[in-house]
Amino acid sequence: MSVTLSIIREAAERIKNHVHRTPVVTNATIDKMMGCTMFFKCENLQKVGAFKARGATNAIMQLTADQAQRGVVTHSSGNHAQALAYAAKQFGIACTVVMPDSSPSVKVDATRGYGAHVVFCENTLIAREETLKHIVDTTNATEIHPYNNDQVIAGQGTAALELLEQVGDLDAVIAPVGGGGLMSGTAITCRTSRPPMQIWGAEPELAADAKKSIESKQLQAPFPPITIADGLRTALCDRTLGYLLQHDVTVITAKEDAILDAMHTLISRLKLVVEPSGAVPVAAMMEHKDLFTGKRVGVILSGGNVELVPKF
Amino acid sequence: MSVTLSIIREAAERIKNHVHRTPVVTNATIDKMMGCTMFFKCENLQKVGAFKARGATNAIMQLTADQAQRGVVTHSSGNHAQALAYAAKQFGIACTVVMPDSSPSVKVDATRGYGAHVVFCENTLIAREETLKHIVDTTNATEIHPYNNDQVIAGQGTAALELLEQVGDLDAVIAPVGGGGLMSGTAITCRTSRPPMQIWGAEPELAADAKKSIESKQLQAPFPPITIADGLRTALCDRTLGYLLQHDVTVITAKEDAILDAMHTLISRLKLVVEPSGAVPVAAMMEHKDLFTGKRVGVILSGGNVELVPKF
Repeated sequence: MSVTLSIIREAAERIKNHVHRTPVVTNATIDKMMGCTMFFKCENLQKVGAFKARGATNAIMQLTADQAQRGVVTHSSGNHAQALAYAAKQFGIACTVVMPDSSPSVKVDATRGYGAHVVFCENTLIAREETLKHIVDTTNATEIHPYNNDQVIAGQGTAALELLEQVGDLDAVIAPVGGGGLMSGTAITCRTSRPPMQIWGAEPELAADAKKSIESKQLQAPFPPITIADGLRTALCDRTLGYLLQHDVTVITAKEDAILDAMHTLISRLKLVVEPSGAVPVAAMMEHKDLFTGKRVGVILSGGNVELVPKF
Repeated sequence: MSVTLSIIREAAERIKNHVHRTPVVTNATIDKMMGCTMFFKCENLQKVGAFKARGATNAIMQLTADQAQRGVVTHSSGNHAQALAYAAKQFGIACTVVMPDSSPSVKVDATRGYGAHVVFCENTLIAREETLKHIVDTTNATEIHPYNNDQVIAGQGTAALELLEQVGDLDAVIAPVGGGGLMSGTAITCRTSRPPMQIWGAEPELAADAKKSIESKQLQAPFPPITIADGLRTALCDRTLGYLLQHDVTVITAKEDAILDAMHTLISRLKLVVEPSGAVPVAAMMEHKDLFTGKRVGVILSGGNVELVPKF
């Protein structure tokens, strides 16, 4: 059984006391620059600084008592690691995160800061999966995958649900695409509640596997992990590709320069910290302005976990 | 006649459709770190990115029709320049800003972006004042001083007024002190509406003229302008020193390292862009934690106009 709008509504009700209802902000200068009216859903102000808190919380809250006692495990060096650690801690559940031994100490510390146990492995997909399997085999912990998981996808879909409640009708919505969890949840919510909406995914040109996968209707391999938008280096899985095709998502891309430029615009104009992955939708819009002229566009600012330093 | 709480209430009513009622945010991690409960009044999310929009708007809206026709002038290379330009533009009033010829082009461009005419002068107080006097003499424009002006001070006091409405009782409030406009308005509001409140000013150790002036009850000369908190390099004037003494403000200082540290904490935890001057109160609190233990403290995050770059 796949994720539907009513499952997303149930998720929203379930998690509402454990995650923030994030604000939506607007900015006249950016609207002028872009030639459309933009509504920024501030998931950078979400718990743990990213929308990932939604999906992780929704999954954690549906564990059985038996599963809860055995704990959860995932592999992630990004926001999902912190999100799962945060969500598990809220419910007194043990959480183990498998991370590559090359992970930045700031991410390791943040994950441990939420009380998770971190297990290191080599920085290859095989090493990650084997380490994870070993933990599952020995502890009977439940794996909570960052996006190949319907409960996680339903949780991520609650951001768009709130956005529509907060701003009313929109002509279009745009969100970043990495593994496709946020994009799937966004597409299910928007296509079902407002069928004529345009639903855009945005990804770096250097990680355009989702665009290729959708156009070919076949899962494509991930690109080399070199884009600065580190949250979008992962590829879709069959499950998320299925949702994106089913709900008619079109993907547009952004060059690296545009991502930095969009990040700078958001930081200097909105006065909000936005990580590179979160700026990708705005970057892609900058490169494809004509698609959005005169429209009311919802933009999911997915996260704010980036280190910024003042330039004096 | 000096500024009172009722004059500040009138200012709040006057400007309410032209400036933002900025949000107040809280953060559990920072509270834990500081040992108190902090309420951040986000004037970094104000129009033009700083509380200065309040005072400038309040002054502009009280010009007579005759004065409005002749325009306004000020000298500032900081947030007041943009604030006056913004406020003047809302009412179709000409605005001239005298800036040192060494001003960063980003500030000049921002001021011009709001439609002001920029006149350059040498980077000395004498050159600024002479250039300003020449403009006043030739155009009959009205000078709107950044802080030596009761209408400006009344406008700045509306930030604390909103803060108290938004969060209820506070044990203490803290704001940065440069020329003393924001501090005067904050002190008048808080001392009058909640007499037992502790009212703290915060300034860089490298620009501690307000501390010296209050302790000696005599206006002290400005320090050399070297602190990174560029908005706080100016000294008090007799008017603002008078308000600070009358309303029992105590000033504490922060070292430069602590200012950078506080800025980093605010940016990484709140996901909000805060300029060095805006981080000075938190830096001063970090250096004087014992003064705040267990208290409910309102903190005015004065502005967010700083250029930040990602650290990869």
